[in-house]
Amino acid sequence: MQEKGLLIVLSGPSGVGKGTVRKEIFSQPDTAFEYSVSATTRKPREGEVDGVDYFFKTREQFEEMIENDQLLEYAEYVGNYYGTPVEYVQQTLDAGKDVFLEIEVQGAGQVRRKFPEGLFIFLAPPSLSELENRIVTRGTETEDLIKGRMKAAREELEMMELYDYVVENDKVELACERVKAIVVAEHCRRERVQYRYKKMLEVD
Amino acid sequence: MQEKGLLIVLSGPSGVGKGTVRKEIFSQPDTAFEYSVSATTRKPREGEVDGVDYFFKTREQFEEMIENDQLLEYAEYVGNYYGTPVEYVQQTLDAGKDVFLEIEVQGAGQVRRKFPEGLFIFLAPPSLSELENRIVTRGTETEDLIKGRMKAAREELEMMELYDYVVENDKVELACERVKAIVVAEHCRRERVQYRYKKMLEVD
Repeated sequence: MQEKGLLIVLSGPSGVGKGTVRKEIFSQPDTAFEYSVSATTRKPREGEVDGVDYFFKTREQFEEMIENDQLLEYAEYVGNYYGTPVEYVQQTLDAGKDVFLEIEVQGAGQVRRKFPEGLFIFLAPPSLSELENRIVTRGTETEDLIKGRMKAAREELEMMELYDYVVENDKVELACERVKAIVVAEHCRRERVQYRYKKMLEVD
Repeated sequence: MQEKGLLIVLSGPSGVGKGTVRKEIFSQPDTAFEYSVSATTRKPREGEVDGVDYFFKTREQFEEMIENDQLLEYAEYVGNYYGTPVEYVQQTLDAGKDVFLEIEVQGAGQVRRKFPEGLFIFLAPPSLSELENRIVTRGTETEDLIKGRMKAAREELEMMELYDYVVENDKVELACERVKAIVVAEHCRRERVQYRYKKMLEVD
């Protein structure tokens, strides 16, 4: 009868402030989701604990995980692998807890294919909303500058396409509030709640 | 460029506490939605102001509104008509403000047909979630009692079908928080936000 948790994926263009928003969310005492611990092949730093900060793996172990489809997503940065072990995510969701991932857009695409029912939140730079004013004040800017901005905005728009929600990171506190509101709302979605009642009524 | 407001419809079985939740929501200073003023044929009471508490109408005026399709929903109670004028709702939405309706389930069905894009929230009695435990403790209750409860729960479940969200009214404050979180989340839905950016980018 245990209702499954939600997989919450926060992503967005690099430099948008995903890490800052994630840290703020987890610093709030009323946050009830579990942070997904990543696996990595990089060496543990002083004080880092296996299973808390990261699951530390050898290159061989990590590549075995890739082959055995044990990673929800992974990527290689500066010679080290980083990835999300599917087992931890699955167990936490099965235990009825919400799992929170903060990952790059490439990784989010991989997760979407494996977990289409996840909750995908695109963290958008505040510049996207400022862009309107900037574009509107034409004449004061060179045409090339405007074109460059339009192109960047179009690319961000295309990335958005995969996501369920767009949260503007105008202020970290507001962005956190929106992310948490989205999770509360998703838990109230009729499809989720109704299923619970239906199951309950089938008992008899 | 003005983004349209959301039509928020709070409904649910009678006696579930819709009015209490609505009052609590509007007593909170950070609530940013407009309450839709109903039209009625009942006489104004001492202190009631036309256009604030109700739009007071004669029976003839009200029936003309029905004929001219000027009501989003209406019903007759104890010899008087009550209804939601579509004009006020439409103007407020067009001005980019969210409009909040608290209406009976019959009315909500009428609104759904005219405003399928509205946000329909079903306020559920806490008994629905308690029901599980109650049903499980079989043997201590007569079969008829259990059947009666199952039937009531099934009927409520069928009413839910039309709604986007289900909010359990376990505690008024929590129910309000959920309703407001749903509105925040809906404003972050990609379809809504993306449209804004797309429109913006079409300018050039």
